Amino acid sequence: MGVAYEREGAGLEFDRVAFFTDAVFAIAFTLLVVEVGIPELGTAVDAEDASALFEALVDKVPVLIAFFIGCFVIGSYWMAHHRFLSRVARVDQRFVALTVLYLSFVALLPFPTALLGEYFDNPVSILAFALNAAAVSTMEAVLFHHAARARLFRLDWPPDVVRWALVMSLSPVVLFLVSIPVAFVATWLAVVVWALALPLQLLLSRWQPADTDTYLD
Amino acid sequence: MGVAYEREGAGLEFDRVAFFTDAVFAIAFTLLVVEVGIPELGTAVDAEDASALFEALVDKVPVLIAFFIGCFVIGSYWMAHHRFLSRVARVDQRFVALTVLYLSFVALLPFPTALLGEYFDNPVSILAFALNAAAVSTMEAVLFHHAARARLFRLDWPPDVVRWALVMSLSPVVLFLVSIPVAFVATWLAVVVWALALPLQLLLSRWQPADTDTYLD
Amino acid sequence: MGVAYEREGAGLEFDRVAFFTDAVFAIAFTLLVVEVGIPELGTAVDAEDASALFEALVDKVPVLIAFFIGCFVIGSYWMAHHRFLSRVARVDQRFVALTVLYLSFVALLPFPTALLGEYFDNPVSILAFALNAAAVSTMEAVLFHHAARARLFRLDWPPDVVRWALVMSLSPVVLFLVSIPVAFVATWLAVVVWALALPLQLLLSRWQPADTDTYLD
Amino acid sequence: MGVAYEREGAGLEFDRVAFFTDAVFAIAFTLLVVEVGIPELGTAVDAEDASALFEALVDKVPVLIAFFIGCFVIGSYWMAHHRFLSRVARVDQRFVALTVLYLSFVALLPFPTALLGEYFDNPVSILAFALNAAAVSTMEAVLFHHAARARLFRLDWPPDVVRWALVMSLSPVVLFLVSIPVAFVATWLAVVVWALALPLQLLLSRWQPADTDTYLD
Repeated sequence: MGVAYEREGAGLEFDRVAFFTDAVFAIAFTLLVVEVGIPELGTAVDAEDASALFEALVDKVPVLIAFFIGCFVIGSYWMAHHRFLSRVARVDQRFVALTVLYLSFVALLPFPTALLGEYFDNPVSILAFALNAAAVSTMEAVLFHHAARARLFRLDWPPDVVRWALVMSLSPVVLFLVSIPVAFVATWLAVVVWALALPLQLLLSRWQPADTDTYLD
Repeated sequence: MGVAYEREGAGLEFDRVAFFTDAVFAIAFTLLVVEVGIPELGTAVDAEDASALFEALVDKVPVLIAFFIGCFVIGSYWMAHHRFLSRVARVDQRFVALTVLYLSFVALLPFPTALLGEYFDNPVSILAFALNAAAVSTMEAVLFHHAARARLFRLDWPPDVVRWALVMSLSPVVLFLVSIPVAFVATWLAVVVWALALPLQLLLSRWQPADTDTYLD
Repeated sequence: MGVAYEREGAGLEFDRVAFFTDAVFAIAFTLLVVEVGIPELGTAVDAEDASALFEALVDKVPVLIAFFIGCFVIGSYWMAHHRFLSRVARVDQRFVALTVLYLSFVALLPFPTALLGEYFDNPVSILAFALNAAAVSTMEAVLFHHAARARLFRLDWPPDVVRWALVMSLSPVVLFLVSIPVAFVATWLAVVVWALALPLQLLLSRWQPADTDTYLD
Repeated sequence: MGVAYEREGAGLEFDRVAFFTDAVFAIAFTLLVVEVGIPELGTAVDAEDASALFEALVDKVPVLIAFFIGCFVIGSYWMAHHRFLSRVARVDQRFVALTVLYLSFVALLPFPTALLGEYFDNPVSILAFALNAAAVSTMEAVLFHHAARARLFRLDWPPDVVRWALVMSLSPVVLFLVSIPVAFVATWLAVVVWALALPLQLLLSRWQPADTDTYLD
């Protein structure tokens, strides 16, 4: 009972910010499955009837597509945070507070994802998802901007590299906002607009300032 | 099959207390979204009807406000724990036991948060949330007090710094308790009382003993 | 894109066993709140009616007691694992496999806890909870026994210390099994039997072999 | 407020990949209990009626079997990942991206597990579970293949060891696919086919190339 466990090293506080972030991402990622739900076969149907359960699962296809879209989006944001934090050498109180705000929007993502699964053909589902994702991307840029201004990065970034990295972070916001009016024409077209994020990033990387690689590695 | 994985270093036991805490906070934080729930459109309504889904989402506004209040409160407590533990150099069995009790009240927070979302205009929701939050703040002070008494801090804190830090920890308890009768006058006024926590902390920081910064950094 | 993140140190594999365990415990602990659920006020009642919501919350008292019993039991098991692992210096494949089996029973605990909250006066709830908790305690002893036999502890434990520690681990199993017939007389009496675990441990600690403290610190 | 928490060491990025993986596994593992659910006794029955609750629990037996099958399968995949990563010395961006895809299928596992619990005698449940598990096993092999090709392992594996390890990873895929037509004959027979995974691995280990142990330890 008299034992005390000593702290070792001085990195725990930095690590906790990373691990709290990872935990919120992992839970949001895994909670997506809760929204899939088990199909209920009508009472008139035999529970062993293979074709009845098969048809019930076919009805789940939009929900499963939403599940994988959710995994893709949450997974991509986690990878972006992983890359971003790898360049950060220290965090201050404001960084921690901004991280909590950023994680609020990450934690909300399962809500519009479930909406998308349930009402895939409804433009309001697209609107909700796009607004939530745009909020996450914006907070990503805010975190980035704060890290540059408060000199939290390993290296001191020159202004043109900071500016270019902000453009990269904010480019999905533009696509998400553009997708909203598009959704009212056709919801599937809005999803296509989202999918443009990847080629857009490749296109933007052509204007990358000369010495960027030093800071991004 | 004959491989054994060796332990490295001696900090794991301290770290596990931090990471168990982080995990409980992260889950309570992310579970808040489960209570938001997907709106059900009436059977007479077309699932693709944008205005029907939009109205259903407007009905969700109080639940979403409760979600963000929950994120703010749980996030603030996590940040307070992060700051607090950064000053702790070792933990004993009693500290671990008190942490588990503290985390029970943290884990309960999604319950009054959901109550708040569902019955925002009911003073009993405010009562439940205020009591739960007051319990978390009280346990925060108990943890703090034990850490000071059992010399778990990095530095030996002088009595006036300990006393002042306890006042800081307990000041939200006063506000939460005051908000309860206020809620029976008007629920929104009770939320305003909660929001006074921040200016109150700033006000109290004026009476901070001279050498406090040494211990809080 | 060409960056690689290098592994540092050799302790990750040991740590992952601890952190996977912590995560399962933290989730089981926090999932308990999901079972509490939001009370539904009858449609005839005004949602702002304070006394109606207050009465609905009073009906939740057994569920809240079950929540805190669940927190206490899961928290106690986590603390026991924390103390146990602090004496372990290495883990082998069999230890990892036994840990996964042990965690299956930990992950199941929210189920009988919810049963207890819903059907507190039903002896079958006590039966389910007692069997599940007895399974966790038994697996705890199995892990302990394997660690002693495979020389995973920091120090080589003498046989009498191993035997005494096994008796300590298994003593709650006896109480849990005794509580089952007691529950069929009176369910509250069964909970009293569970509460005897603490004084029983204190009593047993009198027969502790002379040099035990060396191994338990 | 002016404090900054410094990063320590250079291993955080590698560790985050392990801990994000552990968190997703731990959540999928623990979410299985949510699907078990509390039995509802008919309104005509006394809530204290022991035999009514006992019968209701007996009806839960298939759901509990599905819970333990889910724990066994998710636990086995986690152990396989734990062993696999112990041989990896560095991770690149593609490894992280493949890990996120692999974790999507892990996070989906509670869905077919719940299906299995609800519709145990329906071959479509077996089909869903087998397809999902086969996807996880396939992604395991893809991760393995990428690690070998991009030289992420501690040691440079010779081609015959890589080939043999891929066969080991992919052997459960064959069993899962074979179990699907078998399920349409008898669902319990399909579960027997899954159980062949263990003896099959033991059989395959006879053809292990001579120097494999060097790379697998």
